[in-house]
Amino acid sequence: MCKNITEFTNLQNFLDHGWSGIIRGVADAKSPARHPTLATVSETNAPEIRTVVLRKANQKNSTIQIHTDKTSKKVRDLSINSNGALHIWLPKSRLQIRLNIIAKIQTGSDVKDLWDRVPERSRISYGTVPAPGTPIETPLAYQQPSNSERFAVLKCQVIKIELLHLGLHHIRAQFSASSDWKGTWLAP
Amino acid sequence: MCKNITEFTNLQNFLDHGWSGIIRGVADAKSPARHPTLATVSETNAPEIRTVVLRKANQKNSTIQIHTDKTSKKVRDLSINSNGALHIWLPKSRLQIRLNIIAKIQTGSDVKDLWDRVPERSRISYGTVPAPGTPIETPLAYQQPSNSERFAVLKCQVIKIELLHLGLHHIRAQFSASSDWKGTWLAP
Repeated sequence: MCKNITEFTNLQNFLDHGWSGIIRGVADAKSPARHPTLATVSETNAPEIRTVVLRKANQKNSTIQIHTDKTSKKVRDLSINSNGALHIWLPKSRLQIRLNIIAKIQTGSDVKDLWDRVPERSRISYGTVPAPGTPIETPLAYQQPSNSERFAVLKCQVIKIELLHLGLHHIRAQFSASSDWKGTWLAP
Repeated sequence: MCKNITEFTNLQNFLDHGWSGIIRGVADAKSPARHPTLATVSETNAPEIRTVVLRKANQKNSTIQIHTDKTSKKVRDLSINSNGALHIWLPKSRLQIRLNIIAKIQTGSDVKDLWDRVPERSRISYGTVPAPGTPIETPLAYQQPSNSERFAVLKCQVIKIELLHLGLHHIRAQFSASSDWKGTWLAP
């Protein structure tokens, strides 16, 4: 439901509201926050953007976690330029959430614990042969074995959050780690 | 509705299906294609991502049009690095559409015809005082006069389209202007 405007006259409340929307995406597979879009910068200095699945979110540490295939283009992009941006639109709250992040790519023994908890049926997302993005002759000329060596975790440090609430009047604010998440209102 | 897999064994059909999803966003304000996310690269070489409104789409010329405020951050980003990326997710078709574009920013007399057709009630989106993104003391400390001088049109030349259909088997293909939109299947 649309939040009343009076709920957003306090920066800390607004930030908490944003985080609770993000965190809901981890617990609730039906929340739109479950599938943010992730933007990266490619080696040719062009942006790339795609849907990802939100696996963890922690307001206290300002961290977000995403799982992916080590050979995917997003991992290549982030290994060259670790700056990323995540976008979530929550239609019921009419809230746009924008996160700027720095991604650290972890694989192998560093993420063995996480791999062990990936359900069997989901493991086929890590190991496609040929690797994701490889040209193939026919649409189904690929296989999906599960391969723990291909499992990569993007540990994302959130450095900035921008919230935009589209109400009768638009309300926008920005929060950054560098200013200890105190935040400031912005003209929308 | 979910398209049957057999509909996507022909690259041209798949591309046409993608474009028809995009174009629907122009005519139908309720289509998810109405509100793509646009990624740009900021002057610090980090990606930025936000929702935009799709105003025009033309498969024949491979063009997309977006309206915005001339003083917005996305215009600044694109004036330095004209590479952009658009993302659309169509839940009913289970289709992810990714577009790589080169944006040309037009303002003033070049877009007078378009401004004349912007409905009165929408004109307040162009002219916010202070400019969008300016820190303000309280959430509503801004005004929204209409200002034709602030109206900017992003004329986007599409250079690449990538489609991913999430079905029983995932189907992915990429099409580029440089290969005359012939396209190739990709491992998903």
